[in-house]
Amino acid sequence: MNTNHIRQVVIVGGTHGNERIGLYLVKKFNQDSSLLFRPNLTTNCLIGNPQACKENQRYIETDLNRCFIKADLDNHLLGRHEEKQAKVLHEQLGPKGNSENFLLDLHSTTANMGLTLILVNDHPFNLHLAAYLTHHNPQVRVYRWTQENQENAFVSSLCQLGFAIEVGPIPQGILLASLFKETETLIHQTLDYLEQVNRGASPPLPKTLTLFQHLEVVDYPKTSNGELAGMIHPQLQGRDYQPLNPGDPIFLTFEDQTLFYEGCSTVWPIFINEAAYYEKGIAMCLTHKQDISLK
Amino acid sequence: MNTNHIRQVVIVGGTHGNERIGLYLVKKFNQDSSLLFRPNLTTNCLIGNPQACKENQRYIETDLNRCFIKADLDNHLLGRHEEKQAKVLHEQLGPKGNSENFLLDLHSTTANMGLTLILVNDHPFNLHLAAYLTHHNPQVRVYRWTQENQENAFVSSLCQLGFAIEVGPIPQGILLASLFKETETLIHQTLDYLEQVNRGASPPLPKTLTLFQHLEVVDYPKTSNGELAGMIHPQLQGRDYQPLNPGDPIFLTFEDQTLFYEGCSTVWPIFINEAAYYEKGIAMCLTHKQDISLK
Ligand SMILES: [Zn+2]
Ligand SMILES: [Zn+2]
Repeated sequence: MNTNHIRQVVIVGGTHGNERIGLYLVKKFNQDSSLLFRPNLTTNCLIGNPQACKENQRYIETDLNRCFIKADLDNHLLGRHEEKQAKVLHEQLGPKGNSENFLLDLHSTTANMGLTLILVNDHPFNLHLAAYLTHHNPQVRVYRWTQENQENAFVSSLCQLGFAIEVGPIPQGILLASLFKETETLIHQTLDYLEQVNRGASPPLPKTLTLFQHLEVVDYPKTSNGELAGMIHPQLQGRDYQPLNPGDPIFLTFEDQTLFYEGCSTVWPIFINEAAYYEKGIAMCLTHKQDISLK
Repeated sequence: MNTNHIRQVVIVGGTHGNERIGLYLVKKFNQDSSLLFRPNLTTNCLIGNPQACKENQRYIETDLNRCFIKADLDNHLLGRHEEKQAKVLHEQLGPKGNSENFLLDLHSTTANMGLTLILVNDHPFNLHLAAYLTHHNPQVRVYRWTQENQENAFVSSLCQLGFAIEVGPIPQGILLASLFKETETLIHQTLDYLEQVNRGASPPLPKTLTLFQHLEVVDYPKTSNGELAGMIHPQLQGRDYQPLNPGDPIFLTFEDQTLFYEGCSTVWPIFINEAAYYEKGIAMCLTHKQDISLK
């Protein structure tokens, strides 16, 4: 793959139909194509799951952002709405792992994630761009959701270059002007970088990048029947990217009992109290904060 | 109706299936009936729309909290899921306007409404109780959603005594421990008052009550095709119950143009940016703040 020249930038919004910021940014960009114009860059915006957006639902039958396993994309027996839509996107933007496109997939969350880049691989191009963005925008954080021996199933895994942008906190189904504009600025900063690459320039970069590496997910406390038995502890609520130490409060049961974090070392939880993750059995994702040096 | 003795208190949660605080409070109370025990009071808790709660959706086919018009309750041709569920609740808790029950209907909102009591009538009993609650809990605000010559269609309109409790801000589909506990406390304070009434005591009350009286609803800016054209202005977001003056910013279009409030006098907007009201064409409700004296 030629990383000295980005063939095409693809911006996907509305992969989840109740995440309105990405959807309305794509609508805005599609209404006036001059907005994203860069002389040396071609940009294409599209809606990931139009039907789910129309119904203001995360999905119709299953989570589109878990449908991009190669074997599933090739399996024509998988015919649920999102499994079919994944094949359409794969046809347009793939083939998975071998696409020359740069992909941005826009998401939002009820968790206090600020402006997060979600990397699903270790491509140096993405690490450099992430470092550039954190340098120009101190609000930006970088989360690497890679799991050993496990293929990533996100939309953003279609292309080696690019990542998902996850912004929050914002309830499902609404717009927040502040976060809308911050996301828009982040997209422009990304395009500025890619434009420089295509002009043959090397934007100056910091020497290190702070990365939050995915460790594991944690479920809510449950009863023996599998029913929810508690909530995120008020002392943890909203404290995404802050250190959680062994013995710190993590959950509060409905009977007002505090449960404590029982791990043996400090972790940095994110996606704390994301609405869409209740059904997945995820109360938060634990990460490890690390500084990596850039070559 | 005998307001010296409350026959039964009914607490409804999960009228909207993605409003989890009310739902999980009702589950908690039903699991341990001693929690709400008062010697002179009978309390019954139930889930308003169990099917919608199971699916974590506001409703299955139509908004249950708009199904309680008398003529609709009597019309057996109306057979959508919520129209049928309204008839079930009416059978249990009604007849509308003539029920001896005291009803609390628990809701939550993405708007910054704090702890709001929503009155749908002018019954002095409700005004007195509202005054008691604001006196004991300065976070509590009172909103009267009455419209002239228009029958109210809320669950809470089934009974003359009682009201809806609307708490926020909270995204749909999640729990927040802080707001869960504040709502629980408010329910206990309500029961404490009712218990005193049933014991023949007259709890001391303030002389006046601050009331936010419903004026009208305001829609988002729209394109000629009826599409959303803007968002709540960042300067108005979260400022529920604060005065909005003529000339103040109210919306921000996607093209970054500020729209100003063009009314001719100060209003107090609430339900600003409630997720469920996008489909109703409601960006906020305007109210008039007034102090009324209690007899
Ligand atoms: Zn998403
Ligand atoms: Zn509600």
